[in-house]
Amino acid sequence: MPLISEKGLQMPESPIRKLVPYAEDAKKRGTKVYHLNIGQPDIKTPQVALDAVKNNDIETLSYARSEGSEIYRTKLANYYAQHQINVTENNIVVTTGGSEALLFTMGSITDPGDEIIIPEPFYANYNGFSKASGVTVVPVISKIEDNFALPKIEDFEKLITKKTKAILICNPGNPTGYLYSQEEIEKLKKIVLKHDLFLIADEVYREFAYDGLQHTSVLSLDGIEQNAIVIDSVSKRYSMCGARIGCIVSKNDAFIKTAIKFAQARLSPPTYALIASEAALDTPQQYFDDVKAEYVERRNTLVTELKKIDGVKVANPKGAFYCVAELPVTDTDDFAQWLLEKFNLNNETVMVAPASGFYSTEGEGKNQIRMAYVLKNEDLITSVKILGEALKQYNS
Amino acid sequence: MPLISEKGLQMPESPIRKLVPYAEDAKKRGTKVYHLNIGQPDIKTPQVALDAVKNNDIETLSYARSEGSEIYRTKLANYYAQHQINVTENNIVVTTGGSEALLFTMGSITDPGDEIIIPEPFYANYNGFSKASGVTVVPVISKIEDNFALPKIEDFEKLITKKTKAILICNPGNPTGYLYSQEEIEKLKKIVLKHDLFLIADEVYREFAYDGLQHTSVLSLDGIEQNAIVIDSVSKRYSMCGARIGCIVSKNDAFIKTAIKFAQARLSPPTYALIASEAALDTPQQYFDDVKAEYVERRNTLVTELKKIDGVKVANPKGAFYCVAELPVTDTDDFAQWLLEKFNLNNETVMVAPASGFYSTEGEGKNQIRMAYVLKNEDLITSVKILGEALKQYNS
Repeated sequence: MPLISEKGLQMPESPIRKLVPYAEDAKKRGTKVYHLNIGQPDIKTPQVALDAVKNNDIETLSYARSEGSEIYRTKLANYYAQHQINVTENNIVVTTGGSEALLFTMGSITDPGDEIIIPEPFYANYNGFSKASGVTVVPVISKIEDNFALPKIEDFEKLITKKTKAILICNPGNPTGYLYSQEEIEKLKKIVLKHDLFLIADEVYREFAYDGLQHTSVLSLDGIEQNAIVIDSVSKRYSMCGARIGCIVSKNDAFIKTAIKFAQARLSPPTYALIASEAALDTPQQYFDDVKAEYVERRNTLVTELKKIDGVKVANPKGAFYCVAELPVTDTDDFAQWLLEKFNLNNETVMVAPASGFYSTEGEGKNQIRMAYVLKNEDLITSVKILGEALKQYNS
Repeated sequence: MPLISEKGLQMPESPIRKLVPYAEDAKKRGTKVYHLNIGQPDIKTPQVALDAVKNNDIETLSYARSEGSEIYRTKLANYYAQHQINVTENNIVVTTGGSEALLFTMGSITDPGDEIIIPEPFYANYNGFSKASGVTVVPVISKIEDNFALPKIEDFEKLITKKTKAILICNPGNPTGYLYSQEEIEKLKKIVLKHDLFLIADEVYREFAYDGLQHTSVLSLDGIEQNAIVIDSVSKRYSMCGARIGCIVSKNDAFIKTAIKFAQARLSPPTYALIASEAALDTPQQYFDDVKAEYVERRNTLVTELKKIDGVKVANPKGAFYCVAELPVTDTDDFAQWLLEKFNLNNETVMVAPASGFYSTEGEGKNQIRMAYVLKNEDLITSVKILGEALKQYNS
């Protein structure tokens, strides 16, 4: 029997996916499961995007241009201009989700064995894309005590080797909800210029910055035009995760030209989703204001309720819709499974994401979980209540 | 300035894409361009698929299941059963186009430096996916004189090394239109069993087998359950290239399990396209009969007309909708560009794909072109007339 590859063996399993069978079993037993485990918002997709697809008059569903149509890229450039990011359509490659944007980026700037430094905890799938690309993730630890702020410059510098090709950040962060300040982005600028690295910023949660804070894009800084790469996606911005449209944005022409070669090999992003995504650019500002108000309320609820539980430490997220909490347990992988397998409160339980999957340093995050506040306020209150009761019972 | 990767530098440019600016310039000059260069059929997508999307009632466009929903995979298994392929939903991973199916397959079975043997000429993007995966393509030459039949077993065997992980075929073939006989597939079975290799068959043109010939899937043979992998796609079958839905089919559980890890990292195939693809499975047989009749007529027209031109040699395609022709010129890259840049007949010209991009052996295919018969009969007649006149003028 022919064998699968080392690369294939090393591909990580989704840290959330492991729990899915337990959640399914719980549901079969009649237990209601509150899903705080996945970043799939319940927010409605803008009507203008949904309508554009319903009203399409396609007769032959053809390939789209590999890097996205000129008109869509031009409209995207206009959108970015409204966010202090001055780019043209030629700085943009449209991709099949932020996932593909990351994959093309890694393919374009790394060879097998190269290294990318990522503050951890980080979005679990960065591990998957890295393995698929043969890249080594070098984590630099950020701490819950510091609210997951950017680690010190020295912490980065001591990790830089000849193989280091880039620093990758997620801003605002998944899973941390941390929003980097302009000062922190300036610090990163200094490092990448000094060591001639790419600075990749996953800015898919750009729109979700709270408490009056402004998001700072790596593309808004002067002097790192050749270093800065933005990963973007319509998934969270317009609550259309199923579209699978994202993009790469960079002023580095050699990089863009290379990314387009990867785009050509896979022919085309999905055409229906492009229709939705182009239309979504006409979403009225009110939509974002409403969504942001909703998330702020949910965050406040979640954080306030969590703080009421003895022994729970919680970072205060300023963006995105995730929150990392430290629990008074030693192994949240076990606890999260136990919640689904053994526990219920009035026939209800919660599904959370054990945070170990968001770290690549072995043993880190074992007492942490990630919660996505993608549920209604009252469901969040119930969920935290369940969690509190569960912790009591689990620890006794 | 940080540098892009060796891998990125080596990514091939699309052999067709290079000519696009010349085609655009020709159009700007008012010249009509007949596109024989790309496999984008003009055939209408089945109404049942288009309607399903138009009538969708999505409010939040959510992620789909990474490997495709159970219901869609079950329906796909039923479709395969009608084509002498007995598989279950657990043998299927739904992908974003056949492109991603190939990428996940290469990732799952190869490590950087591994080799895959492919009869050439082959689908140009196999080069791209191979480079992206760090895989070396080892070509085994099939000849226009033999109609591009399977090379001899000895030709394969002398190329097999310790690094060889798979043989990849496209059946029916792009760009050759060649349909492998059951005997040829049995030959491949012997080789892969003897040398413990995977046998990957890109069968996206399965439905397009002409002249009463039957397509033989690698999954229909006993004894290579652990070796056989099918790459599939809805793109050509239902003329919905823009959907970007494909799948991997294999009875090798370890392989499928690994491919699912790649699928999880990119989260989800595109949701709208899944709606269209699931509905497309209800396309009436009449649709395929009509499409097949149309393609057979076009092929007959194209081949008949091409044979009338002095010095043109043409393979007789039995499937798909491509045809490779040998022209009385030494460099079709130059000729194809000249057609767009310098030539017109009554203000019309043709765009063809130089075949060199379908070979990985340097210098092969320099006097060949690929033509896709995706245009109406009368346009094909005009196109070949233009080509004939152009050859006269180019050679004088």
